[in-house]
Amino acid sequence: MLQNTEFDAVVQEIAENYRGNREICYNCMDRHFPNRGAIIGIIKDLRRVLFPRYFGDDGVTNARPEYFIGCELDHLQDELRSQVREALLFEDPIWVAAELNERTNQVVDAFLKKLPEIQRILLTDVQAAFDGDPAAQSKEEIIFSYPGFFAVFVYRLAHELYLQKVPLIPRIMSEYAHDHSGVDINPGADIDEYFFIDHATGVVIGETTKIGKHVKIYQGVTLGALSTRAGQGLRGVKRHPTIEDNVTIYSNASVLGGETVIGEGSIIAGSIFVTSSVPPYSRVSAEAQKLLIRQGSEPTSPGAFEEV
Amino acid sequence: MLQNTEFDAVVQEIAENYRGNREICYNCMDRHFPNRGAIIGIIKDLRRVLFPRYFGDDGVTNARPEYFIGCELDHLQDELRSQVREALLFEDPIWVAAELNERTNQVVDAFLKKLPEIQRILLTDVQAAFDGDPAAQSKEEIIFSYPGFFAVFVYRLAHELYLQKVPLIPRIMSEYAHDHSGVDINPGADIDEYFFIDHATGVVIGETTKIGKHVKIYQGVTLGALSTRAGQGLRGVKRHPTIEDNVTIYSNASVLGGETVIGEGSIIAGSIFVTSSVPPYSRVSAEAQKLLIRQGSEPTSPGAFEEV
Amino acid sequence: MLQNTEFDAVVQEIAENYRGNREICYNCMDRHFPNRGAIIGIIKDLRRVLFPRYFGDDGVTNARPEYFIGCELDHLQDELRSQVREALLFEDPIWVAAELNERTNQVVDAFLKKLPEIQRILLTDVQAAFDGDPAAQSKEEIIFSYPGFFAVFVYRLAHELYLQKVPLIPRIMSEYAHDHSGVDINPGADIDEYFFIDHATGVVIGETTKIGKHVKIYQGVTLGALSTRAGQGLRGVKRHPTIEDNVTIYSNASVLGGETVIGEGSIIAGSIFVTSSVPPYSRVSAEAQKLLIRQGSEPTSPGAFEEV
Repeated sequence: MLQNTEFDAVVQEIAENYRGNREICYNCMDRHFPNRGAIIGIIKDLRRVLFPRYFGDDGVTNARPEYFIGCELDHLQDELRSQVREALLFEDPIWVAAELNERTNQVVDAFLKKLPEIQRILLTDVQAAFDGDPAAQSKEEIIFSYPGFFAVFVYRLAHELYLQKVPLIPRIMSEYAHDHSGVDINPGADIDEYFFIDHATGVVIGETTKIGKHVKIYQGVTLGALSTRAGQGLRGVKRHPTIEDNVTIYSNASVLGGETVIGEGSIIAGSIFVTSSVPPYSRVSAEAQKLLIRQGSEPTSPGAFEEV
Repeated sequence: MLQNTEFDAVVQEIAENYRGNREICYNCMDRHFPNRGAIIGIIKDLRRVLFPRYFGDDGVTNARPEYFIGCELDHLQDELRSQVREALLFEDPIWVAAELNERTNQVVDAFLKKLPEIQRILLTDVQAAFDGDPAAQSKEEIIFSYPGFFAVFVYRLAHELYLQKVPLIPRIMSEYAHDHSGVDINPGADIDEYFFIDHATGVVIGETTKIGKHVKIYQGVTLGALSTRAGQGLRGVKRHPTIEDNVTIYSNASVLGGETVIGEGSIIAGSIFVTSSVPPYSRVSAEAQKLLIRQGSEPTSPGAFEEV
Repeated sequence: MLQNTEFDAVVQEIAENYRGNREICYNCMDRHFPNRGAIIGIIKDLRRVLFPRYFGDDGVTNARPEYFIGCELDHLQDELRSQVREALLFEDPIWVAAELNERTNQVVDAFLKKLPEIQRILLTDVQAAFDGDPAAQSKEEIIFSYPGFFAVFVYRLAHELYLQKVPLIPRIMSEYAHDHSGVDINPGADIDEYFFIDHATGVVIGETTKIGKHVKIYQGVTLGALSTRAGQGLRGVKRHPTIEDNVTIYSNASVLGGETVIGEGSIIAGSIFVTSSVPPYSRVSAEAQKLLIRQGSEPTSPGAFEEV
């Protein structure tokens, strides 16, 4: 085991790292941080309110649902208010108390007022998934278990807070969904109703993407930026594509660039790259890949075949 | 903060959404739903029974394992029975009680009887992973930590319930595995023994896929359907490929279509698209991509290179 | 419900599987296994020590951080010691007690001494993510929520234990990170500072990969092996590429092979395959894919367009 002096040295070095880095800043009384666990709790509470029979422990009841909803929302708004306050103080620690309260209330009130509309739009997303997936046996199955739907559910919440310019919280929310769905939708993306992501894993939708109604995308699709070597120099610029109504994008296709517009009703084939606009009702595919098929006399001999 | 009347309006609108949508249906005494948390608990219990030293809190003991197994299975069958009952009632709320009990028992009994065989097949999957992965240091490492093995474990359970036509539960199970492995195996797929998925993330295996023995696939492989714009019109049709014995499919390849058969012993190269059948012992690759290599005078100048 | 004799038969068969398979081996008093839950607990504790304001419940305080760090590390080293001991005994059950203690202490002491340096390097990874991602609004957002950063955090811990040849634990750690980030970094990989993985999902970095400073990679990138049909025959051989300083690899590109070196300052375009070395400051892309764009008269007719 480490000698006491060696152990002390380790402790001391970590403490020095704390002192030397504003990101860590253990003793900074002036720094505020939202609580990641509390934010995840808010997501779960919102899921219980919007889809009570699926994620709640609420028994079936004859009582008016208003009791349940009112009680849940009342609790939830307190939690959200306190996290939003921390997030605003994280960004700027010198708020005047009264102004901070007013700004917090603005954010939370706007969010609450938007909830019924978000719920309505989520029901259109469920419909789109049911209509689009022959393996779906019921709409309930989608709400219970489709990761694409979960990612869109969290996105629609996070997007409202992004619009209100709340720091940190939208991204914490979207990365929670990313963890549990494999879908990375930046909360800044602008996505209309009836949206369906099938199979989910590996989908990336960038911050300045715009997506119309009735759009369907598959696993591995990237709606991304062209070169981003400019890094922070590109903040705020439209770097991601626009996808118009009724577009389908098949698995592992990439559509890139802030000026790229996929016209309405278009279909993008799987595994292709699109970096310029296509007119409405286009069907975009690549020239058929020429496949080489050899017959192997010793089909499993080690090293005889390369991965490429 | 919201005025009382504003808050009431939000509550009211959400309640209206409840009332107007059968999927939500807060007050419907006639609707039954399985419990997602309980189903995940059943998966974890089954993992403890089949691989007790890995996922249990069970200490080492000299007692006969029959005590442990019998006790666990007895508890587990009750849990499963109650979830299956709810799932059957979800699909059809007007079961006659005696018939519902009989059907529930049929399902659960068949499932229990299949468990020893599932365990045996899972051990072949462990063997396949060990034989196929030079980075594997022991079979135990695979059981403990390989996400591809976890996905196959859950698939083999869910598939039995799918065969018994249990609604909702198989998909809830497979999406739980999807969340924790990045592998989306539809419970309807038919997968034989010695199956290995290396690196796991991004694999999609569709509902009507058929896979033989000793098949090995890598991350990002899609065994999928051709155009699915027909949506629900395609339910029940074979839309996904057949992969015969001893086939290897490298990373990010896609094999698509219900009539596509990959003959036994074939090797499919990475990142290619296969949409028609290939005979046994084929080695399928694409013409080498012509790479363009330029030398950059200012290698990191922003925007000088596009992502495509 | 199953008859007693049928139930007994199931129990009996599972018990036989236990008896016949060393991997399961329920009654083996001589076999040791680390505890997966305890190992995940150690990861979480380490995260609290290295980034206390983010993942801890620790309130802001004026007390010297040494108290917090010393207390946490003292607890954590006991936990780690007991898991390392189990892992060493798993590999070889006939350790002499004194030698086992000495080896365990060597491992844990070396790990503890490395922690301040790991923390320092992680802060360079945060800086790289902030500099490289125009959507990042603060460094704190990265620590809180970026899955690529979480994967690199766990990798840097697991790698130290891998270097000390601890069995099982490094892989359990890396697969925990894989689960929560979609990034599969084998603990054997050798990755220098200022490393950034954007969007994370689907990245695979093989065991013998070597990565320099200031390297940036995107979602879906594979740094992999060529044919691995030789399986266990390839253990210990360098099978994965070397990526030099200041290289950028865009989304879904694959760089394969143990002799492949990507020279410093190079840029690899998205979705391409690289299986041979490229000199420094290369910009590697593929010939533009020829896209076919047809106009659809009936744009949404089912089956009119194939996924390929």
